[in-house]
Amino acid sequence: MAKGSKNKGISPSRQEDFPAWFQAVVREGEVAELAHVRGCMVIRPWGYAIWELMQAELDRQIKKSGASNAYFPLFIPLSYFEEEAEHVEGFAKEMAVVTHHRLEEDPADPEKLKPGGELAEPLIVRPTSETIIGKSFAKWINSYRDLPLMLNQWANVVRWEMRPRVLLRTTEFLWQEGHTAFATEEEARENTTEMLEVYRRFAEDFLAMPVLTGEKSEDERFPGAVMTLSIEAMMQDGKALQAGTSHYLGQSFAKAAEIDFLNKEGERELVHTASWGVSTRLLGALIMSHSDDVGLRLPPTVAPRQVAIVPIPRGDDGPAVLEEAQALAREIEGLTFQGTEVRVLADLRDREPPDKRWEWTRKGVPLVLELGPRDLKEGVVALRRRDAEDPKPQSVERSRIAELIPTLLAEIQGAYHGAAAERLGSRTRQDVEELEEFRRWFDTDPADAGAGGFVRAPWSEAPESAELLEEMKVSVRCLPFDQDLPPDSRCVLTGKPAVVEAVFAKAY
Amino acid sequence: MAKGSKNKGISPSRQEDFPAWFQAVVREGEVAELAHVRGCMVIRPWGYAIWELMQAELDRQIKKSGASNAYFPLFIPLSYFEEEAEHVEGFAKEMAVVTHHRLEEDPADPEKLKPGGELAEPLIVRPTSETIIGKSFAKWINSYRDLPLMLNQWANVVRWEMRPRVLLRTTEFLWQEGHTAFATEEEARENTTEMLEVYRRFAEDFLAMPVLTGEKSEDERFPGAVMTLSIEAMMQDGKALQAGTSHYLGQSFAKAAEIDFLNKEGERELVHTASWGVSTRLLGALIMSHSDDVGLRLPPTVAPRQVAIVPIPRGDDGPAVLEEAQALAREIEGLTFQGTEVRVLADLRDREPPDKRWEWTRKGVPLVLELGPRDLKEGVVALRRRDAEDPKPQSVERSRIAELIPTLLAEIQGAYHGAAAERLGSRTRQDVEELEEFRRWFDTDPADAGAGGFVRAPWSEAPESAELLEEMKVSVRCLPFDQDLPPDSRCVLTGKPAVVEAVFAKAY
Repeated sequence: MAKGSKNKGISPSRQEDFPAWFQAVVREGEVAELAHVRGCMVIRPWGYAIWELMQAELDRQIKKSGASNAYFPLFIPLSYFEEEAEHVEGFAKEMAVVTHHRLEEDPADPEKLKPGGELAEPLIVRPTSETIIGKSFAKWINSYRDLPLMLNQWANVVRWEMRPRVLLRTTEFLWQEGHTAFATEEEARENTTEMLEVYRRFAEDFLAMPVLTGEKSEDERFPGAVMTLSIEAMMQDGKALQAGTSHYLGQSFAKAAEIDFLNKEGERELVHTASWGVSTRLLGALIMSHSDDVGLRLPPTVAPRQVAIVPIPRGDDGPAVLEEAQALAREIEGLTFQGTEVRVLADLRDREPPDKRWEWTRKGVPLVLELGPRDLKEGVVALRRRDAEDPKPQSVERSRIAELIPTLLAEIQGAYHGAAAERLGSRTRQDVEELEEFRRWFDTDPADAGAGGFVRAPWSEAPESAELLEEMKVSVRCLPFDQDLPPDSRCVLTGKPAVVEAVFAKAY
Repeated sequence: MAKGSKNKGISPSRQEDFPAWFQAVVREGEVAELAHVRGCMVIRPWGYAIWELMQAELDRQIKKSGASNAYFPLFIPLSYFEEEAEHVEGFAKEMAVVTHHRLEEDPADPEKLKPGGELAEPLIVRPTSETIIGKSFAKWINSYRDLPLMLNQWANVVRWEMRPRVLLRTTEFLWQEGHTAFATEEEARENTTEMLEVYRRFAEDFLAMPVLTGEKSEDERFPGAVMTLSIEAMMQDGKALQAGTSHYLGQSFAKAAEIDFLNKEGERELVHTASWGVSTRLLGALIMSHSDDVGLRLPPTVAPRQVAIVPIPRGDDGPAVLEEAQALAREIEGLTFQGTEVRVLADLRDREPPDKRWEWTRKGVPLVLELGPRDLKEGVVALRRRDAEDPKPQSVERSRIAELIPTLLAEIQGAYHGAAAERLGSRTRQDVEELEEFRRWFDTDPADAGAGGFVRAPWSEAPESAELLEEMKVSVRCLPFDQDLPPDSRCVLTGKPAVVEAVFAKAY
């Protein structure tokens, strides 16, 4: 980083250029970067540590739901895709295809290599695993006693992206995909709903990111699904980010893969399947929800370090300061926040203290403590809260630190959640009644993070509304679960009789 | 599974056909299966749960060594491989090549799909990530202050296999790959050695699998490495399985990727790199180390369930038996073994009790407890140890269970370790002095699990010994660290003056 930028925070600011701000936060926070292959990303240690914390919590919840982890092949034979027409339609345009299994010397230039060993059947790098997991389900499920079958996989998937954006739209990304099979439609629908609720709670409680929940409109459904549910979060620029989906797939995948079972009456029946997933997109959502013009801001639950201690070892008292920084770290390590040990670091690296403070600040550490010879003498510590407006530190008595830290972490978690909830509430308009007003609300400068948001309004589902929305670059995010459609409502887009309440937004 | 096979254990036995026995154990234990794509495997929930336990422990050790996890792209541009000639030589023959990024309707047959969107530069599905991680290191490392840089990645990798074997040699497998960069050769070599020691301890303490440690001979080195270290385990058929490797890569990868840094004197220098990894092969090693003719045997440390409780709910006492099974599970859950809560399951599924007992037995659960109405009355539990020769259960007082379980688990862990150590010791011959005897030792029926083993003997490193070894299908497994070459020793293969002690074996 250039010297001059050290204490200046992120440039541009959110107001100046939200997309460019996001990229800068991701870069300066050392979360991830697009590199090596167009559209592919490197997740750097700090970003990956956030992902690991998310994974650990979500994995616990998934296992609690009754699912077990397993692992299925990266490669899917092309023919599997030919069997599920509707599903393929939705993915066919963006898959990586393996056609060769060898590299050979290029006869034209012995310094160069070229593909050799052409495959009889091309292999697709999985864009999602319904087809391949379905084939295994068909093999493993014989009787009603084998049901329900509930599996989950943590894996990388690939969907070729023409306009990649780091963390939000990348050719390769990491995710979990749950795949479940049930004897009845009722159980499969229940699992679909239950897992969406797991995602909702995870977003709200763990990521401090309140979300809307609802069903996707027909156009926005997962290819081949009967019903798609999603959680939708509002970013600081008022755009929606779909943060998790759960699909009831009916019996179409079961039919294509021949997943049937002998029921209690001794008859063969097709199972009902569901699938659900969240991805490393959540890292993007987390950043666009909480970060500011200084850099990352991480809710303590997902902060790889919740407390960073920066010693300022000047003069003769240098060794005593370093020692005290470590003693303080050991003491804080013994504390707990939300049932786990507080993650603390005494930063003893050979760098200037202001550089260290700045590094932990732009990486989003909730609490930074500083400690110099004078603090040592006075028995105090300089404490900075990442959620504070005022960049000046508070002087806190050393003896009160242990008692303060869990409380402060809880306050910061609450502050981030509160701000996100306030935004979602205040920037979701429910009073837009006709097209012109709707158009004005969404006709904002894309760089203006303070304008726009969601509209919740009656909708007719009329085909012509799709064209209007496309023209405005707005989409139906969901049909919220808590429907409250007044009688005789008119569609906000077409003026026709409304059949449902919908939430509209520009989206990532 | 066919009804008749229910209580018969694995067919064939180890003595009858070791390779076929291994496949049957993997299948009947529901660990994994080759499926869908030639050479690719599905890791089933039971197998994946074992892998997760291994991962968790190894991840702890890796982080303790100072490395952080990160994630790098699955795809590597073909040109990266052209830059490190020696490295490519070793992998060039077996890589999956992505040449297209789209599937299109086949004009010849609208029901069929074909690859479209040819890539300007083919992409290689990573066989290992030295080249791509090296490029990132070059970007991130500027000064000596950025060193050491120690990263680890948990990922899938692909090496095309012509003769695949489940868990042992698969086209796609899971692994961790550590990649580290240091200012000096000394530090890089130290890291290489330290990580091998991490693997050794992990194999010995966690997998109950004692191993030999040593350096690979020149022919067996990782492509491009200066030094490769490995841990080598002995399977029950006397063959060696390389269970983990650690490489000092010198400066050749640093040179190819231009990873240099400004040293304290202000001069540019190339870094020294190392890499180290273990894979899902360890699941194969675990099985071939400990399992028997009944099925899997899992050391308690890696058993997804350490205790299975099978209730036998007959007659009027049925409900009381089921209740007691659950009460017993709750009590056992509160116990600890090696610092973690005992993993116990009360198996309440709608199946016959003998089928349940058999399932947990062939899946390797260390302790199976059975509980019927009579046991309830007498205040006892029928206990089966998976390591016991005698298949009959012991009757144990219900009140003593809590006190017994941690002890029994420790005994079983010790018994598996003891048997593996005894095998490694007794079947490593150190008294073979010349070629004919060497030949006889290795000239065994490949199906005979009781014959053969390792030979530790003086070696000349003469080129003609390589041909002799190839002809016998024997390889140099390692040059053990604890060298003890008597003066004036002669090479066991050629009779020439020996320069080193080597361990020879047939290998997986």
